[in-house]
Amino acid sequence: MDFRIRPPKPDDFKDVFRMVTELSLLDKSPDLQISREELKQDLFCETPFLQCLIAEVPAHCKTWEGHTTVAYTLFTNAYCTWNGRAVYLGDFYVMPECRGKGVGRALLSTVAKVGKEQHCAIMLTEMRGNTPLIDFYIAKGGEDLTVTERRHFLRFDGDALDKLAQEAPQCT
Amino acid sequence: MDFRIRPPKPDDFKDVFRMVTELSLLDKSPDLQISREELKQDLFCETPFLQCLIAEVPAHCKTWEGHTTVAYTLFTNAYCTWNGRAVYLGDFYVMPECRGKGVGRALLSTVAKVGKEQHCAIMLTEMRGNTPLIDFYIAKGGEDLTVTERRHFLRFDGDALDKLAQEAPQCT
Repeated sequence: MDFRIRPPKPDDFKDVFRMVTELSLLDKSPDLQISREELKQDLFCETPFLQCLIAEVPAHCKTWEGHTTVAYTLFTNAYCTWNGRAVYLGDFYVMPECRGKGVGRALLSTVAKVGKEQHCAIMLTEMRGNTPLIDFYIAKGGEDLTVTERRHFLRFDGDALDKLAQEAPQCT
Repeated sequence: MDFRIRPPKPDDFKDVFRMVTELSLLDKSPDLQISREELKQDLFCETPFLQCLIAEVPAHCKTWEGHTTVAYTLFTNAYCTWNGRAVYLGDFYVMPECRGKGVGRALLSTVAKVGKEQHCAIMLTEMRGNTPLIDFYIAKGGEDLTVTERRHFLRFDGDALDKLAQEAPQCT
């Protein structure tokens, strides 16, 4: 399949947000925690901490709904002294009808290239139930640290985060 | 225990790096992936993407080795549209002789407060073998998504990352 990988321009935002919505529906988590306006601001503000890449096919390869932007990924910098600098892959999505054609591989390898330039590893989390995607990552050389190191992923959010924040001493 | 939580100044760096080294030895991973110079640069450059907090006790509470800086945490921003903005907790360490005295709770709750101000959740990974720390996070309201969602943590690094990056198409 003929395609190219590039960072989005503001005009591409409608396609990025369309795919964000598609991904959330596929993941059965339709309640996005980020609004359209917030995401646009976070992507295109003067000093975005969020990076994005999209995959674009030529017009003659458009999807049956007429889209030429068929995949995207969002990532940020992360850090721990144990691993050093890293890229945290937040979103990774290829439209179902464009899978198995090298788009995902090209998108992931481009993130790897960006990471390498900044001496970064790539890290990410994924639900074990999404077997095809986990298998894809492992086939591409990813290590499942939850298997090899029994590394668990935890999150504080909602009421628990509120309660925790209220306990904070004055920061001086 | 009397202590205060604050961001480090450049003069505190020797203590931060001492604790980074202590943590790596306790984790039995003495080969740090980040040098002293890189960490100092990443912490104190003009636009650091890395945030740090330290816990400091008064002189009369110093450790038996004479240290008054007894805990630190490093964190960065992270992002996914499923969760929205987040803080990724890279390092979290309280010197063993200062544990059980509220220092870790104060440090974590200050990260939560910083996170709340930016509308961020906190996320982190930890080895299941480090049971006391995982239990601490869960007691503070953290959700172990590896248990509740079978969420796995994966990483690309070293040769696998090199190979992947070499496959990247030209980014246009």
